[in-house]
Amino acid sequence: MAKQVNLNADMGECFGVFKIGDDDALLDIIGSASIACGFHAGDPNTMHKVVMRAKEKGVSIGVHPGFNDLWGFGRRRIDMNTRDLEYMVAYQIGALQGMAAYAGMKVTHLKPHGSLNNMAAEDIEIALAIGRAMKTIDRKIIYVALAGSEMEAAAIKLELPLAREGFCDRLYDDDGNLTSRKIPGAVLHDPEEIKNRVVNMVLNEEIVSRNGKRLPRKIDSLCVHGDEPTAVTAARAVRRGLEAAGVKVLPLTEMKLG
Amino acid sequence: MAKQVNLNADMGECFGVFKIGDDDALLDIIGSASIACGFHAGDPNTMHKVVMRAKEKGVSIGVHPGFNDLWGFGRRRIDMNTRDLEYMVAYQIGALQGMAAYAGMKVTHLKPHGSLNNMAAEDIEIALAIGRAMKTIDRKIIYVALAGSEMEAAAIKLELPLAREGFCDRLYDDDGNLTSRKIPGAVLHDPEEIKNRVVNMVLNEEIVSRNGKRLPRKIDSLCVHGDEPTAVTAARAVRRGLEAAGVKVLPLTEMKLG
Amino acid sequence: MAKQVNLNADMGECFGVFKIGDDDALLDIIGSASIACGFHAGDPNTMHKVVMRAKEKGVSIGVHPGFNDLWGFGRRRIDMNTRDLEYMVAYQIGALQGMAAYAGMKVTHLKPHGSLNNMAAEDIEIALAIGRAMKTIDRKIIYVALAGSEMEAAAIKLELPLAREGFCDRLYDDDGNLTSRKIPGAVLHDPEEIKNRVVNMVLNEEIVSRNGKRLPRKIDSLCVHGDEPTAVTAARAVRRGLEAAGVKVLPLTEMKLG
Amino acid sequence: MAKQVNLNADMGECFGVFKIGDDDALLDIIGSASIACGFHAGDPNTMHKVVMRAKEKGVSIGVHPGFNDLWGFGRRRIDMNTRDLEYMVAYQIGALQGMAAYAGMKVTHLKPHGSLNNMAAEDIEIALAIGRAMKTIDRKIIYVALAGSEMEAAAIKLELPLAREGFCDRLYDDDGNLTSRKIPGAVLHDPEEIKNRVVNMVLNEEIVSRNGKRLPRKIDSLCVHGDEPTAVTAARAVRRGLEAAGVKVLPLTEMKLG
Repeated sequence: MAKQVNLNADMGECFGVFKIGDDDALLDIIGSASIACGFHAGDPNTMHKVVMRAKEKGVSIGVHPGFNDLWGFGRRRIDMNTRDLEYMVAYQIGALQGMAAYAGMKVTHLKPHGSLNNMAAEDIEIALAIGRAMKTIDRKIIYVALAGSEMEAAAIKLELPLAREGFCDRLYDDDGNLTSRKIPGAVLHDPEEIKNRVVNMVLNEEIVSRNGKRLPRKIDSLCVHGDEPTAVTAARAVRRGLEAAGVKVLPLTEMKLG
Repeated sequence: MAKQVNLNADMGECFGVFKIGDDDALLDIIGSASIACGFHAGDPNTMHKVVMRAKEKGVSIGVHPGFNDLWGFGRRRIDMNTRDLEYMVAYQIGALQGMAAYAGMKVTHLKPHGSLNNMAAEDIEIALAIGRAMKTIDRKIIYVALAGSEMEAAAIKLELPLAREGFCDRLYDDDGNLTSRKIPGAVLHDPEEIKNRVVNMVLNEEIVSRNGKRLPRKIDSLCVHGDEPTAVTAARAVRRGLEAAGVKVLPLTEMKLG
Repeated sequence: MAKQVNLNADMGECFGVFKIGDDDALLDIIGSASIACGFHAGDPNTMHKVVMRAKEKGVSIGVHPGFNDLWGFGRRRIDMNTRDLEYMVAYQIGALQGMAAYAGMKVTHLKPHGSLNNMAAEDIEIALAIGRAMKTIDRKIIYVALAGSEMEAAAIKLELPLAREGFCDRLYDDDGNLTSRKIPGAVLHDPEEIKNRVVNMVLNEEIVSRNGKRLPRKIDSLCVHGDEPTAVTAARAVRRGLEAAGVKVLPLTEMKLG
Repeated sequence: MAKQVNLNADMGECFGVFKIGDDDALLDIIGSASIACGFHAGDPNTMHKVVMRAKEKGVSIGVHPGFNDLWGFGRRRIDMNTRDLEYMVAYQIGALQGMAAYAGMKVTHLKPHGSLNNMAAEDIEIALAIGRAMKTIDRKIIYVALAGSEMEAAAIKLELPLAREGFCDRLYDDDGNLTSRKIPGAVLHDPEEIKNRVVNMVLNEEIVSRNGKRLPRKIDSLCVHGDEPTAVTAARAVRRGLEAAGVKVLPLTEMKLG
């Protein structure tokens, strides 16, 4: 059977007149859009626009919930209790479902943003709080979780659909964690190198650490970025490289997950 | 057939540690709760709490959307374009639907808050924008509209379920509009007087203006308040007075609307 | 005596990761920067950065207060009472003074932003409320007021220093008001045309309306923009044109006003 | 020489229609008010009102800066970098100075709020960032610092005036830290007990830990609360007890510090 993989990207991160990212370019490349919901970024108009474009492009949509911190763009850790955090996520899921009605679409996945993602990857209580919000509202929503993280554990425990996520443009340590951005070279920029790593990751179901260690790892979804023109170029190279290698690039909704 | 009427109140208008209103007292009196959704007031925790309590008390729930103005509590007119306004309302409907999932409840009505209500009562374009958001998300949501206002016209035009609203504690002018709060005596405080006016309003399907003019007007839902202890006392008197007069006090979801 | 004029521009309108405008380019052109203070745009980091750059470039600094509406970028009219509005402006003046201490600079002018500017130009009560905030905090702050507007009247009444403002890239009606942006051609884009109009405006102390009517009008400060690359080009052309015509382009603090 | 001490309280923590605390009652008891500045609570109107009342009552005023988190009332830790944090504090100092101009008053102290206080007490980098903001704007502002904390160290290092703070209604551990609120009995409620502890603390310049250990500690300022009626009663008892014991209760501005 042909290999398959999903490409996802963060979307809808404008706020009023403030613009971020090239959503239109990415929508031609990815299969699934993770849409900001007004807490770390995004506003109702922006959400509406992205939802309508995703519909046109056949891209599936998901919630990209973040902390209530527009100033910090959701990148600052906020020490919330897990009950507050759960309802904050539920609120954002609902809000996007409201906007998705304009396109007659369903919200089919969730991927936490920024610090909320980092904290959920490390802390099972936070990962479970997010999962409970998903399960309460719609138990079919796919939890997009960093492969090997506490989010993966939470999705399994709560019996939520799970997509294990990998990163195209980041080095990994020998233990399978992402190499800290503080280490020089931790973030890759060369489209050719990024493409080759990703194709190997998917074809051989392994991640090669920065020391050359080969870690078996099945990746369902690869995260690409659109904040800079070079990121869009790399995302395009990844898509083409995967297709050239015979990999099917699909929306999350068409993936065989498990 | 016995007369019937709904009592509604604004709810969930706390924000974090900031408390407003006596939601628990009102939930024993009213049939339908209009729940703030985080824009003029309210936060995910508060929304969750009100939804769970409403479920326990058999009170139906609705959206109480407001302007994005916590500082002004949604009472300041903001000159938004109608497209922005429509999506802002859709966002708030969705957010409450998300929280309602915790109680397994449906969101069954919408009543705009503060200045958004005042502006929609006067301006058909705003009233229609709100209605389009409702219709897009769930065409069964009941539009709670000041009787005789542009919101009523919008609900009829969009073929949305309509509940005509009356006010227990406000004087009316001869033309059926509410007497301005700037006129002394425009707001009633005496529970006995309020009760008597309301019972007459429902039994005789008429409003008596401050000059004694009798205006035929069928009221489906009466707005009560809980901001002050006296308001709760008056709300309780209204409920008892209506029941003593043989009027059935029902949730909006059990009303025969038309 | 040589003619003199000030060039001013709005600055510091980023918010966290969200970027707007090319402040660095404009700081080489203008004499005075009007700095957003965190209400319609701007944050403490951005304010700090602009203040430090203005110091380096010899550009004087002023407050650019706006409504508390980041989502609407201060462009939506909000119906505040004048007392609230006055204290809101005072707060923003103080906040910028705090940041200005890092450069050892004084805040020397104020120009309202967006809808607050439009409303103050038309409504003397709003114009006076802004002026009272200025006068309470520092009666030497220069009120940058659309020439002929209620802001000008307020500055005179409150005996505040006044700089009459003109627009480089806008047509005027015969009565001296700006031609509405809804009229085609109301906003000019050609740098050469803009430069010629401005040089005439300053040398001959007159504005020529779109119908060719010549209106005597002494302009102290000209507003330039930096939102688009073409705007920066036009601003540069204006500066060069004025200097070529022998006009001194000065910070507001070095102008002879009155 | 007679002993002297200051009583301080948090003030101005309303936000729009949302009310918290009994500022008027406390202003008759305390010598110094720490005023919220619109980030964790407070708005320009509220700041104005508290400043004017403080003037009437002869109470000195200070900044009570908090995190930009109204929803969490500044009680959630936010992981900001120290540069952002410094400018955020500078902004709030400036904003209060702006409002203080209405009363012709100077801002004479600073006490961080909630989590910002907790973090600054533990982390010298945060404590120094706050101190740098103070020193840049006005090097005479008194740093109100938990006795023995990193804030105390920062004030000394930056050569800022320092007031060592003690708590009236909290138990202390043997090492001089506050007993965690999670330990039963950590917060005292009995006015008589509170008063006796405080009088001993001031007269004998010692803190008695919950195990009875006597720790020498000179306290310049005691924190009282006004969130609940019982807190106001306790604050009043403290004031009377101190005066009965011959202690002078003074504004920070009249204290001999150092």
